[in-house]
Amino acid sequence: MSTHADRLAALREELARRRLDGFVVPLTDEHMSEYVGAYAQRLAWLTGFEGSAGTAAVLPADAAIFVDGRYTLQVREQVSADQWSYQSVPQTSVAAWLAEHAPDGARIGYDPWLHTKSWVEQAAKALADRGATLIAVDTNPVDAVWPDRPQPSTARLIVHPDQLAGRNSAEKRAEMGEWLAAKKADAAILSALDSIAWTFNVRGTDVDRTPVALAYAIVNADGTADLFVAPEKVGEDVAQHLGNAVRLHPREAFAGHLAGLSGKRVVADPERAVSAIFATLEGAGATVLALRDPAVLPKAIKNAAEIAGHQAAQARAGAPLARFLHWLSIEAPRGGVDELTAQARLRAFREETGALRDLSFDTISGAGPNGAVVHYRASEETNRPLERDSLYLVDSGGQYQDGTTDITRTVAIGTPSAEMRDRFTRVLKGHVALARAVFPAGTRGSQLDTLARQYLWAAGLDYAHGTGHGVGSFLSVHEGPQRIAPGGSGFAGGDEPLAPGMILSNEPGYYKTGEYGIRIENLVLVEPREVAGAEKPLLGFRTLTFAPIDRALIDTALLSGEERAWIDAYHAEVRALIGPQLDGVAGAWLEAQTAPL
Amino acid sequence: MSTHADRLAALREELARRRLDGFVVPLTDEHMSEYVGAYAQRLAWLTGFEGSAGTAAVLPADAAIFVDGRYTLQVREQVSADQWSYQSVPQTSVAAWLAEHAPDGARIGYDPWLHTKSWVEQAAKALADRGATLIAVDTNPVDAVWPDRPQPSTARLIVHPDQLAGRNSAEKRAEMGEWLAAKKADAAILSALDSIAWTFNVRGTDVDRTPVALAYAIVNADGTADLFVAPEKVGEDVAQHLGNAVRLHPREAFAGHLAGLSGKRVVADPERAVSAIFATLEGAGATVLALRDPAVLPKAIKNAAEIAGHQAAQARAGAPLARFLHWLSIEAPRGGVDELTAQARLRAFREETGALRDLSFDTISGAGPNGAVVHYRASEETNRPLERDSLYLVDSGGQYQDGTTDITRTVAIGTPSAEMRDRFTRVLKGHVALARAVFPAGTRGSQLDTLARQYLWAAGLDYAHGTGHGVGSFLSVHEGPQRIAPGGSGFAGGDEPLAPGMILSNEPGYYKTGEYGIRIENLVLVEPREVAGAEKPLLGFRTLTFAPIDRALIDTALLSGEERAWIDAYHAEVRALIGPQLDGVAGAWLEAQTAPL
Repeated sequence: MSTHADRLAALREELARRRLDGFVVPLTDEHMSEYVGAYAQRLAWLTGFEGSAGTAAVLPADAAIFVDGRYTLQVREQVSADQWSYQSVPQTSVAAWLAEHAPDGARIGYDPWLHTKSWVEQAAKALADRGATLIAVDTNPVDAVWPDRPQPSTARLIVHPDQLAGRNSAEKRAEMGEWLAAKKADAAILSALDSIAWTFNVRGTDVDRTPVALAYAIVNADGTADLFVAPEKVGEDVAQHLGNAVRLHPREAFAGHLAGLSGKRVVADPERAVSAIFATLEGAGATVLALRDPAVLPKAIKNAAEIAGHQAAQARAGAPLARFLHWLSIEAPRGGVDELTAQARLRAFREETGALRDLSFDTISGAGPNGAVVHYRASEETNRPLERDSLYLVDSGGQYQDGTTDITRTVAIGTPSAEMRDRFTRVLKGHVALARAVFPAGTRGSQLDTLARQYLWAAGLDYAHGTGHGVGSFLSVHEGPQRIAPGGSGFAGGDEPLAPGMILSNEPGYYKTGEYGIRIENLVLVEPREVAGAEKPLLGFRTLTFAPIDRALIDTALLSGEERAWIDAYHAEVRALIGPQLDGVAGAWLEAQTAPL
Repeated sequence: MSTHADRLAALREELARRRLDGFVVPLTDEHMSEYVGAYAQRLAWLTGFEGSAGTAAVLPADAAIFVDGRYTLQVREQVSADQWSYQSVPQTSVAAWLAEHAPDGARIGYDPWLHTKSWVEQAAKALADRGATLIAVDTNPVDAVWPDRPQPSTARLIVHPDQLAGRNSAEKRAEMGEWLAAKKADAAILSALDSIAWTFNVRGTDVDRTPVALAYAIVNADGTADLFVAPEKVGEDVAQHLGNAVRLHPREAFAGHLAGLSGKRVVADPERAVSAIFATLEGAGATVLALRDPAVLPKAIKNAAEIAGHQAAQARAGAPLARFLHWLSIEAPRGGVDELTAQARLRAFREETGALRDLSFDTISGAGPNGAVVHYRASEETNRPLERDSLYLVDSGGQYQDGTTDITRTVAIGTPSAEMRDRFTRVLKGHVALARAVFPAGTRGSQLDTLARQYLWAAGLDYAHGTGHGVGSFLSVHEGPQRIAPGGSGFAGGDEPLAPGMILSNEPGYYKTGEYGIRIENLVLVEPREVAGAEKPLLGFRTLTFAPIDRALIDTALLSGEERAWIDAYHAEVRALIGPQLDGVAGAWLEAQTAPL
């Protein structure tokens, strides 16, 4: 097997053959996906880096890998300093580094199927100051030197039943067609995999953690569609489900089809469609309308069937989590439980339901100081035992056919310190403030974020992540467009008005580096609220996630009467919903855990 | 005297002479000022409209006046429907209306000294769809047909003493010079009148309510400056104060001077400098750096002398307000007080201090339903008596040499209803939540806005304005860049991080159309907060404004213990600071008003 040094050398030779001075290797696919298939793991193949976000830039004499603060340590362990320099984003952008290090007049290559249009524009501008140019390649030079590169998955598409989806694909496409007609547009490009899965009521197994299939789609103003997907992935059932109004094409035919849209008015989403899609359409003489993918908002606003599915999934998911927390309460204080055994046990409890399709993301199982690493993933190297008088944080979720779950609980192993209880209770007060919030229709997530932080702020504490993200219906666990996060801070989505039917996480936290991490996360549904005398339509959150919150970590002296009442009512719901699913010992444990404070 | 119909006809003739098909008449001056001198009141002269914000657009066959929701009624009373159609902004933009109504291929004029560059770009784009073009005029055609147009004020500049300013002008300019050098820039254009007043430690009386003088300035990287101001406005004292490093030029020489900056790198602020400044610089071959006016941030961040001045001004301003509220408590229930007599009495109490230079804005004196009109100005036509069992809202402020004040109090005349007390208490709870907030350095005003709204939201209520604006030091009562307002809602300034030394208003409200209005406004200073164990620098607000809050309107059952304690502590401060300035009867009244709840 070739070393990473060999691979970098081979890439440089390939670049020289193509008369390029450099190349940019991002970690994404043609769909700007969060999780990508093995065929698109070019960054890991080239550099050895296995984190979930990063970019490499290669020049004749320099090579750099760009990661954010989460991966500062990991990149140094996995990527050799002999070949690569480590760069931090957002402090140093790839474009700025290239502009500084590229030879004058350099030709820097990029794969236009792996970058947004706005990235290309910014990078080209940065390079222009050195007389350097950014050159779109026809084929990716990494692929040319990666002999055993995996093929894209050939797994079959799966029909997502209309009764779970709540609306059939023809209805969804008809609505998109009306929207297109109102914009005087002929067609919309769908390239985000979850938009395609939602629009056609299909799912797939082509990437980890998100049940989507590799495809492109074009929805036309007449409600018909063109779906570009490998023919061997489409079984008879799926073909029948799609119907005659959906014309099937090989995935490779997509670019050619775009090139045939000359004279058409075509919607493409600048945040979701790659640069090559815009360039191909513009090159063909189509008029491109840079508008949001029309699946995004209806996908975010769950209908009654999707809400019912989520509620069923959450109720089902609560029991394995309660069994796990009960198991942990017995086993962890005895010793012998570590992060990896704990997360395996949790997965096993989930699998016992017989309904788990996949995890919805890689479980975060963090003991003691590892709990303070926000995007921690336990490995053999980092695995820690759950020690007495420490905290354990577990953030996990499942993909079920009727819904996607995401929950975080933090529990005390042994006796927590007064400081731990103070911090936990402040996080809990923020969680409860958000859960109880009532706000006018039209309110944006950014307007609610501070409700979750205020009690931490009062003690000079905070957390360096958003408070809530959207969640899909048997789709991506991180779904736009809505978000609860500080305004003006670079968190996309905070300005999106919240609408009834949207599902978000409610997950404030607190992290003490080197000691412990705390996060309390439930999913919540935006729903209308009736208040006597209200002058405007109101919204609030219905909590969807049911599992006990560790009472050993709650300092009741810090709670208001209303907060205490909310926690007691929540625990009563947990008991009523989950209790009947548990056997005697676990049931008794749950009873005690959910008794009034 | 000519009628408004005559004036419109004369303008159309003038446009025809100039071969223009239309013209846009905004209400602003060459400095994008909020208050403008009489010479710049072209909109009022042309249309009769006397509101504080609006724009007219004139075409051969159509003419429209554009106002926002505050002026929907007033515009119909003051502007004739025979000549003008009424348009609402932001629903209909001037550019969109012109694009719809202008003849194909029309030539639409605008005065480039009265519009921002971005307005010109957007309007030109909107017109381009009709083949119409936007044409910058050399001289304003309204001025050509306005025979008795007032001359700009020739009032003399006033030295603002260095001990009140806290830093002399040379120091301020030296700091700007260093900033320019770091940007490799040669000079910065200052066109905002308050930026010029702050930079040179001068004041003026050229416009109402804001103590500034008509001028332009250019600050150079070496710390010298060019000040463009009518020579007759500069007395010997001011000339001496400015010193040799400030070269004086006539105001008319400014454009010519800009044209001479060929080859220079010049900073101009796209939000504050008009289109003509950019066009002249670009035409001259200067490189324009579109950056914020370097006076804006240091002007907003008050130094120790300015903070001390504000505190002295606020302490002095509290006594006349207390005397007024005491007078009101006796006279209003007897009958015979109306909005105009009340605001005159308040002004007289302020003038008795001997320190009042001007009001800081036109007083809002609103009885009963007029209190629900957010930007209400009482007139002979609208004047209402203060009736028993109603609310009275008074929002007012003064310009003092050491500081600018702005305060709103709402008081019950007679017995308030339970609903009034409920609403007032919810507004008060929001005011207190903001006053008590503790937050990390770097927090933006938009992150705090919801703290002030949350108790209204819980009852389905809200207010349709921001929560807080910046305030100058013997300068504009509405000063940027900071603001407390919802994010993503078009309120500029919410994304500006709050910094110690900034002063803002804290003014939540509630308005029941046709019945009453409530607002509680104090000014607050951003200052560091020490909290034991804090992990990051913290900020909080120190309340600067001292006057009793009407206890008859407080429903103590709705208050938490902490809220009650805050109000009691605030009232104790009011008593300690204002009490000694009052005589026997008023003093006893204040004592009772500020007793613990």
